[in-house]
Amino acid sequence: MRALHFDGRRLACVETAAPSAGPGEAIVRVRLAGICSTDLQILAGYMGFTGIPGHEFVGQVAEGPGEWLGRRVVGEINYACGECPACRRGLGRHCPDRRVMGILGADGAFAEHLAIPVVNLHAVPDGVADEAAVFTEPLAAAFSVLEQVAVGPGMPVTVLGDGKLGLLCAQVLAGTGASVTLVGKHAANLALAASQGVGGVLLADWTPDAAADCVVEATGSPAGLELAMAAVRPRGTLVLKSTVAEPHSLSLAPLVINEVTVVGSRCGLFPPAVAALAAGSVAVTPLIDATYPLADGIAAVAHAARPGVRKVLLAAG
Amino acid sequence: MRALHFDGRRLACVETAAPSAGPGEAIVRVRLAGICSTDLQILAGYMGFTGIPGHEFVGQVAEGPGEWLGRRVVGEINYACGECPACRRGLGRHCPDRRVMGILGADGAFAEHLAIPVVNLHAVPDGVADEAAVFTEPLAAAFSVLEQVAVGPGMPVTVLGDGKLGLLCAQVLAGTGASVTLVGKHAANLALAASQGVGGVLLADWTPDAAADCVVEATGSPAGLELAMAAVRPRGTLVLKSTVAEPHSLSLAPLVINEVTVVGSRCGLFPPAVAALAAGSVAVTPLIDATYPLADGIAAVAHAARPGVRKVLLAAG
Repeated sequence: MRALHFDGRRLACVETAAPSAGPGEAIVRVRLAGICSTDLQILAGYMGFTGIPGHEFVGQVAEGPGEWLGRRVVGEINYACGECPACRRGLGRHCPDRRVMGILGADGAFAEHLAIPVVNLHAVPDGVADEAAVFTEPLAAAFSVLEQVAVGPGMPVTVLGDGKLGLLCAQVLAGTGASVTLVGKHAANLALAASQGVGGVLLADWTPDAAADCVVEATGSPAGLELAMAAVRPRGTLVLKSTVAEPHSLSLAPLVINEVTVVGSRCGLFPPAVAALAAGSVAVTPLIDATYPLADGIAAVAHAARPGVRKVLLAAG
Repeated sequence: MRALHFDGRRLACVETAAPSAGPGEAIVRVRLAGICSTDLQILAGYMGFTGIPGHEFVGQVAEGPGEWLGRRVVGEINYACGECPACRRGLGRHCPDRRVMGILGADGAFAEHLAIPVVNLHAVPDGVADEAAVFTEPLAAAFSVLEQVAVGPGMPVTVLGDGKLGLLCAQVLAGTGASVTLVGKHAANLALAASQGVGGVLLADWTPDAAADCVVEATGSPAGLELAMAAVRPRGTLVLKSTVAEPHSLSLAPLVINEVTVVGSRCGLFPPAVAALAAGSVAVTPLIDATYPLADGIAAVAHAARPGVRKVLLAAG
């Protein structure tokens, strides 16, 4: 099959053997895959990953249990052991022995076929187009904020970063009735948020006022944390969505002095995201910047790495 | 009056004018004052403070409203405006216009007399000795953890740092029935905790196992945060008690990946601390290493700065 392969130094489009299903696994024929900022970090050496990257996809089950065969699916990315204390607590996403699709010890979705545990599959409702379903994973990551922080009507919330994840978080938070302000660098992305009823302001025009009950840091940049600390009120909550891999220097004294709560937030459960896509309550397809055939994957990744670019998709089928 | 004065570069024992009471203020004759790690940081330039440091004290009201005159008191350290959004929310400790006793814009307690807003005073119950009452402020800081984090019976909790604050936090948390482990460098301090029923382990013998529901970082050292991140379980809570002033380099990616909640924690309300002292439920006087007369304050501060030293008091009266 055709796949994008990362050898630890460079990404190449290769012909490779199609995966075979291990115990409890299904084989999914990938229809669309999304390129995420984490993929770009992985291609820069984050996690020391080698293999086929990619963890956002929608596809069709080609091999697996009868009830799944032929179904259109998305899949949770953490492959958990199912038996450790974290798994027993329902936190398989934090299983210490987990593999993570396209990130840690498991090949991912930038390929024609993908092996994935059957328990990780979620069926895509008929009304949800492939182009929307491929956003399930990042949308679930946005919904995880609601799992971790009590956000509600009228609450002043600031989302820093108008990239893909920031745009999704802003919509999900606004859906609770919170008073959301999106701060970003890209007028076009702010306009997109505005078209969904989320107010935005350009970073250059914005002054943090230490008044937000909750600040979501989704800039992907080390500088974002400093800005977020300046935006959150004392005893407020700061949600970190960016996995900034490189160590950076900062003083945590303001966090202690202002008694801020910082919540690290990564993956979310899929059902709320699938439900939101089925209900059409979050607009995801306007986030698509471009779709490339898998064969042009190298160009697609280069496109995705440009500042301000939204979602770039790979069409494998 | 006699006082310790910091001019921004060095501390001196001086004769200076006694304070006079402004509107709404009382004058307290200080009996005992405690030297805290924050004081040592202030004397190293933290906060750019100049004046009389010191924010832990017990004293007697020498001037003020009739109902307070002659009473033995302790005092909350944040002098708030009382009118801003933070104050109206009951968070005067976070008033943006606040002055802070001996820390920010207000002279402190390393002196024979102290001016303090009457609303900041708390009466000391008769059964509580001066040597215990002088711990009210740091004990309130320990109780603030319970205000911010749900800790309860059987919960595995790790306290990092067997200094003064760590010893107080460990006792307060153990008082909830939590299963507390104190990790420190000083066998004598761990033995003191053990005498209060709190299990401890030497840092050299300890391996963080990412299993604690809650970790309290009270080492006062930048390295403490890294250790704390290794000790807390995924989706657990890390409480930062140390105000480490200098910027330091760290990667926050593990915090995001493990979805840890980090809670900055500083000052607490006085009533729970006063109640615990009155009930004798937290042992504080064993934490006293030495008491110096105010005239020997320079030597007292040098003593307090030695590694592993517990509380050093100044006797002003």
